[in-house]
Amino acid sequence: MGSLDSNYDTESPASVGQFNPLDPEEFRKQAHCIVDFIADYYKNIESYPVLSQVDPGYLHSRLPKNAPYRSEPFESILKDVQKDIIPGMTHWMSPNFFAYFPATVSSAAFVGEMLCTCFNSVGFNWLASPAATELEMVVIDWLANMLKLPKSFMFSGTGGGVLQGTTSEAILCTLIAARDRALEIVGVKNFNKLVVYGSDQTHSTYAKACKLAGILPCNIRSIPTTADSNFSVSPLLLRRAIEADKAAGMVPLYICATVGTTSTTAIDPLSSLADVANDYGVWFHVDAAYAGSACICPEFRHYLDGIERADSLSLSPHKWLLSYLDCCCLWVKSPSLLVKALSTDPEYLKNQPSESKSVVDYKDWQVGTGRRFKALRLWFVMRSYGVANLQSHIRTDVQMAKMFEGFVKSDPRFEILVPRVFSLVCFRLNPISGSDPTGTEALNRKLLDWVNSTGRVYMTHTKVGGIYMLRFAVGATLTEKRHVSSAWKLIKEGADVLLKED
Amino acid sequence: MGSLDSNYDTESPASVGQFNPLDPEEFRKQAHCIVDFIADYYKNIESYPVLSQVDPGYLHSRLPKNAPYRSEPFESILKDVQKDIIPGMTHWMSPNFFAYFPATVSSAAFVGEMLCTCFNSVGFNWLASPAATELEMVVIDWLANMLKLPKSFMFSGTGGGVLQGTTSEAILCTLIAARDRALEIVGVKNFNKLVVYGSDQTHSTYAKACKLAGILPCNIRSIPTTADSNFSVSPLLLRRAIEADKAAGMVPLYICATVGTTSTTAIDPLSSLADVANDYGVWFHVDAAYAGSACICPEFRHYLDGIERADSLSLSPHKWLLSYLDCCCLWVKSPSLLVKALSTDPEYLKNQPSESKSVVDYKDWQVGTGRRFKALRLWFVMRSYGVANLQSHIRTDVQMAKMFEGFVKSDPRFEILVPRVFSLVCFRLNPISGSDPTGTEALNRKLLDWVNSTGRVYMTHTKVGGIYMLRFAVGATLTEKRHVSSAWKLIKEGADVLLKED
Repeated sequence: MGSLDSNYDTESPASVGQFNPLDPEEFRKQAHCIVDFIADYYKNIESYPVLSQVDPGYLHSRLPKNAPYRSEPFESILKDVQKDIIPGMTHWMSPNFFAYFPATVSSAAFVGEMLCTCFNSVGFNWLASPAATELEMVVIDWLANMLKLPKSFMFSGTGGGVLQGTTSEAILCTLIAARDRALEIVGVKNFNKLVVYGSDQTHSTYAKACKLAGILPCNIRSIPTTADSNFSVSPLLLRRAIEADKAAGMVPLYICATVGTTSTTAIDPLSSLADVANDYGVWFHVDAAYAGSACICPEFRHYLDGIERADSLSLSPHKWLLSYLDCCCLWVKSPSLLVKALSTDPEYLKNQPSESKSVVDYKDWQVGTGRRFKALRLWFVMRSYGVANLQSHIRTDVQMAKMFEGFVKSDPRFEILVPRVFSLVCFRLNPISGSDPTGTEALNRKLLDWVNSTGRVYMTHTKVGGIYMLRFAVGATLTEKRHVSSAWKLIKEGADVLLKED
Repeated sequence: MGSLDSNYDTESPASVGQFNPLDPEEFRKQAHCIVDFIADYYKNIESYPVLSQVDPGYLHSRLPKNAPYRSEPFESILKDVQKDIIPGMTHWMSPNFFAYFPATVSSAAFVGEMLCTCFNSVGFNWLASPAATELEMVVIDWLANMLKLPKSFMFSGTGGGVLQGTTSEAILCTLIAARDRALEIVGVKNFNKLVVYGSDQTHSTYAKACKLAGILPCNIRSIPTTADSNFSVSPLLLRRAIEADKAAGMVPLYICATVGTTSTTAIDPLSSLADVANDYGVWFHVDAAYAGSACICPEFRHYLDGIERADSLSLSPHKWLLSYLDCCCLWVKSPSLLVKALSTDPEYLKNQPSESKSVVDYKDWQVGTGRRFKALRLWFVMRSYGVANLQSHIRTDVQMAKMFEGFVKSDPRFEILVPRVFSLVCFRLNPISGSDPTGTEALNRKLLDWVNSTGRVYMTHTKVGGIYMLRFAVGATLTEKRHVSSAWKLIKEGADVLLKED
């Protein structure tokens, strides 16, 4: 048997019948079947442990070593999804998922994604699917309007935007644009002198993107933050760092500020940072991957004040705008710098609209060449729900986090460690104030393990300013107040058990 | 109205009712509805012009300037897909699509993709969804076995693989691994001396990836190819280029060979190139994005001979293995080099399995942090069809291309310009042999325009060795012999019309 020894050559090709992998009626049958499977999964999702309880390597022993030689029935594969895959899933869609930042979803985005898959257009340039490019331009301007971004970031103004996969790509692309602009002035012989800036709270992907772009690791400055400023970066320290670098003959290149850091949702002060960036002609990028979405509500919009003096902004609707992975919006003030750094012009893609410069060719705004029609997802979300519901969705999550914050404050054994701004609560169990920090950390590590190993709730931790914190991130799409209340009860129960043990 | 002036703040938040964007029954209803929409689209796809006939900016005028404030009914949005989006699509799924390389699909991959979307797990590390990581390791080994890759590229051996989005990312990641390894030896002060090699037929994304990684454009060597060698690169010329660079004090870093170039499916001689690469300790990458898939058939496997001496291999199942975008497999011999160059270790992602080094954390194998559960798609494809049907699918496409080649050869007004190897035919109309090359090019440009503007067929062109060629790429999933025959009839009809005009 071919499937046993992978000696697929021994079988006669003639033994294979007519093969039509996209027969519309077979497609219809299977797709309807999987729709019910998925709807049932969402319906029953609370019956699964949130955090997968399998051991490393669990799947390897369950699956054959080779792909089968002959086709297998759809029903068997679906059965194996239930039997082999689901136990190994950490259920991000569970209403009891409070880890990392939840990745939010919606029926509208799902059907938009299905259409995107259906068309399977490879929209590297305008001609390869005009609708894919033009709808992307429309929705990215729509979202810019919802965020009250200045016209300088919009196609209807002098800028523009693009859908990337992740923040990493968005940062990498703008970094390359900034880098190439700088090198034109200082010359490539000074490549090793390019310096970039962030804080010790900037997402780890920033340093990685910088390294990818060839910035020397020793030239990546990480400005320390403190609890006094709620872990937002100090413009003064940034200015000093830049001045020190300039004095040493270095070339300050790029600043990445964050609105809503991953550890604690700290907010860097954009206006003051823009002052520094503008004073030294440094590219100023704002990473608002998570909290940017909240800025569609007027009560949060002020966290983006100063954005009009930034060079670029990234925000991931897959985090908090119900859009499924992967969808990161990048807006830039100077699309021409992006295109200059990232464009390619092979003969086999040449075409009249591109040559006439009357169209946007998105391959020149990103790392790769091929790209999917992801704008459909955002279009479906914005139209299906409208701005009103999207604002309401943000507010509901924030309200639930506020409720959890209230629970924590009501129990003197616990403490809030960073003021809550959005839908993340950073807290810890600290029954005896002023007790040994190592002991407190160990206690909280135990509590986290205890909670997660029940499978009833999943949350994660961070360590900031030397303090180990539990992170309770509200926002999974199916989460309701009752889930937050139950989670708190479980956490308290864990505390009870652990404190009794002590 | 908020939707007119985007003044979304005036509306009272209290006016918004209960909002549940993932109600399982609403999800079920909408998803079933879109399944039928998609099945009907595939069924009726021949009724649409293959190449979209819209003008630049067509969509802008049709859509509102802002997202709606209130939700809109699902049915209206779907109606607008039909009315506004479909006319702007270039229908990659059409059986009459013969442009670029077709992007192939299947019911199995579609349902796999639906499940991937459903789970929406953000698999940055093992713990975030063990099944996502482990199934990826399984299917990438399965495909390696189908391709008879050596154990040195497999998890079951000493290497491993990962699913990237596109070839660009695969090349970028391996380039960074190679770069960092080299810089450890020669020191960062020699960054500007790193040199990379490809041919003038290497995909345009290669030079872009090199520039992203900080390789100076003047250090990207493009070895010229000629028609004599069917546009494959000469190992001798490569060796000379490397020797010249070494003599000039440069540091040869990375060679990218191609199995199946985009213009003409030229095949670089891997074994001889490996000799050169190994002699100089240069990282040797093989880009088999398109033609690699054919190597699951024993009659094509020899084009990968020599792969055992490469450092890395990339292949995109979204091109020819029925997998929808985006899915590029990357295999490497030394995962540790990749991880060393790309790993991050922020506190908020720390966890016991990662620290025990007993698991793979795929965020350290790619550009970004977040990633989707794409392995489901390949798993569904391999199991649903089995190796037998996948081989048959490749062979059928090659047979149809052979048939088209026969048509071209049978008409003395046309000529084949490059020997056909896989499913791409490069040809031109050249009624009077030896006639003025500019005239011949103009005639073929006209013919291409004539054919594509009918909307009945879409094909593209290239220019290699100074010769303008028409590319007829067989392989869209729904294409049958009758479509190839009709396309040829249409091309001949175009030739008749144009030659009469002359």
